[in-house]
Amino acid sequence: MYVLGVGRTKFGVLTETMPELAYQAMYNAINDSPISIEDIGAVYVSNFLGGPYEKQLHLNSVVSSLLPELRLPIIRVETACASGSSALYQAIIALSRFENILIVGVEKMTNASTEESSQNLGMAGDRLADQTQGLIFPAHYALVAQQHMEKYGTTHEDLELVAFKNHGNSRLNPLAHFNHKEVSREMIKSAPVIASPLNLFDCSPISDGAAAVVISKNQKSDRDVRITGSSLFTDHISLSHRREHTSLEAAKLASKQAYEQAEITPKDLDIVEVHDCFTINELVAMEDLGICKPGESKDWVREEKTTIKGEVPINTDGGLKADGHPIGATGLAQVFEVTTQLRGEAEGRQVEGAKIGLTHNIGGVGGTAVVHIFERRG
Amino acid sequence: MYVLGVGRTKFGVLTETMPELAYQAMYNAINDSPISIEDIGAVYVSNFLGGPYEKQLHLNSVVSSLLPELRLPIIRVETACASGSSALYQAIIALSRFENILIVGVEKMTNASTEESSQNLGMAGDRLADQTQGLIFPAHYALVAQQHMEKYGTTHEDLELVAFKNHGNSRLNPLAHFNHKEVSREMIKSAPVIASPLNLFDCSPISDGAAAVVISKNQKSDRDVRITGSSLFTDHISLSHRREHTSLEAAKLASKQAYEQAEITPKDLDIVEVHDCFTINELVAMEDLGICKPGESKDWVREEKTTIKGEVPINTDGGLKADGHPIGATGLAQVFEVTTQLRGEAEGRQVEGAKIGLTHNIGGVGGTAVVHIFERRG
Repeated sequence: MYVLGVGRTKFGVLTETMPELAYQAMYNAINDSPISIEDIGAVYVSNFLGGPYEKQLHLNSVVSSLLPELRLPIIRVETACASGSSALYQAIIALSRFENILIVGVEKMTNASTEESSQNLGMAGDRLADQTQGLIFPAHYALVAQQHMEKYGTTHEDLELVAFKNHGNSRLNPLAHFNHKEVSREMIKSAPVIASPLNLFDCSPISDGAAAVVISKNQKSDRDVRITGSSLFTDHISLSHRREHTSLEAAKLASKQAYEQAEITPKDLDIVEVHDCFTINELVAMEDLGICKPGESKDWVREEKTTIKGEVPINTDGGLKADGHPIGATGLAQVFEVTTQLRGEAEGRQVEGAKIGLTHNIGGVGGTAVVHIFERRG
Repeated sequence: MYVLGVGRTKFGVLTETMPELAYQAMYNAINDSPISIEDIGAVYVSNFLGGPYEKQLHLNSVVSSLLPELRLPIIRVETACASGSSALYQAIIALSRFENILIVGVEKMTNASTEESSQNLGMAGDRLADQTQGLIFPAHYALVAQQHMEKYGTTHEDLELVAFKNHGNSRLNPLAHFNHKEVSREMIKSAPVIASPLNLFDCSPISDGAAAVVISKNQKSDRDVRITGSSLFTDHISLSHRREHTSLEAAKLASKQAYEQAEITPKDLDIVEVHDCFTINELVAMEDLGICKPGESKDWVREEKTTIKGEVPINTDGGLKADGHPIGATGLAQVFEVTTQLRGEAEGRQVEGAKIGLTHNIGGVGGTAVVHIFERRG
């Protein structure tokens, strides 16, 4: 199984509608591939909040309208913030039936107020046990950060290092939400508190955007990237049902299975995209993925091992934190970045000699976890 | 590929929450099958409006909470009113990876006002071209009815016959939304107009409910029902982009493909479940499925060919019209009925000697169409 093409829009506060964004990403992905739209056998659409934000569900039919001459099977997949990777996971399974599949993820989030966004994003959490108790997502991840700090001696400075790295990387990514201005350590440190210990720079932004990926059962060109692992696991939605909070069990299960499928270990990874919806989650991800041992992620960021020139570069596009987090598109934007890196086409942010990459996409606080592994031997 | 078990809740205005309904249906389907929950490799969840109605998305993780000891891949699928069948379609493809799969569809709709329901249901239509112009679903299907009447001489009395048959059938289905009272021709005829020519009895109700299906790659018992056809097609979302309105192109494509897969013709069908969200759509479905020729559906209902004792019994459970339409569950409730009939377990509404059945599930006004064919040779 291969990635034939990737495409995306800029992420940020955009003027385009949801269908316009989806169209741009699909168009770019098809143009990036060696095949044409007529070769596509099925389409998967990932989107989280089209209903609550834009009063538009049934997005598979909306996407059908964007392909006027084609009558295809198109399905929408939703698993909160992991929707993009879940659609990819599903599409990979469907390669058992179709030769080529297009996956498009889209989200339009910036037409609403902060209050609406807070309520809408809360739909990824448990309504009865968590949401109605005020446990919105910054509070969720603040609990994770508090426990990580208490258990391992992680500090807010460590989180600041994650934000600083990712904002630095996004300056090298022309499509990133935060590409336009330098972010200093001082700006990060002095930002207003959102949910202690997390401040504004620990949180990913509300973004519009779309991303698309074309996959195939068979290789079609030298630029294609092989998909060697694809795994998805779910866990209880409410934090009140979890055994521990400094690790996400579904992510550990998904990465273990994906490594087995790809026949690699974390030491083989050259480039990694993780779900840093909050900075603390980049640290948790490093540990869940086995890149470092539990509690050691703070040491890795202090030693700059995850920068573009480090041992295992993480979130070279800026991550959710600085590239942006248009939810339905996020998992596919991770694939865009890994594919671009493995092809050696990442220009200013290129990781030299990258051959194996991984994407880690999370829904809620680990209610869904999806891991994919990619390989390209040039 | 086989259906091993089916389960559902009563449909109607229920006191249970969305997770409680899903749990009941899953429990019933597993108990109806020869396997246990530990044998399940993956779960698909279908739901349309959990976000807008219940402020709960990420339902795959909610379902994970209902299976506390299991860590499975679970994915939510949404394609408006075709969500249930789309999840089944997807699950059938995933039998390439998993031996046994559970599909559960759920919808909780009755906690909201009529105004909210109208807006929420409208999310299945095109927001820009149709919804904001007042083209809500009763108006959509009223246009279809007007054109069908003009083109073929269909009358409102023909639609009344559909409602009368389906309400009669639901009296024989103890789980139906409208099981409790006799509905007369006079009540149907004199009901208030909703969108001319459609009156109240042309419209399916707002229901709560859940349904679940267990499928497997291999047969496990004599009660299993073989899945011989599975097809899904999409079409443009806006009616303004359609070539014609008295037929749904996606439904014609899906049924054609499903018949080819099953190697049967419409003449072989013993029992059919169609998407009668409005009575006119039962007539359109009969024509799209090739059960009769275009324009002849009115003659078939006049001649009572689609009653339980007729040539091709349609909607023996009462259909969406009288069994109810808890959207995410609807497509799977159709599978519940066909499976029950093919097993000869439908009691008072049993179609004698039924061996081949079909389900026809529609999203929007044909933006999505899914057709499945089932067979059991006793």
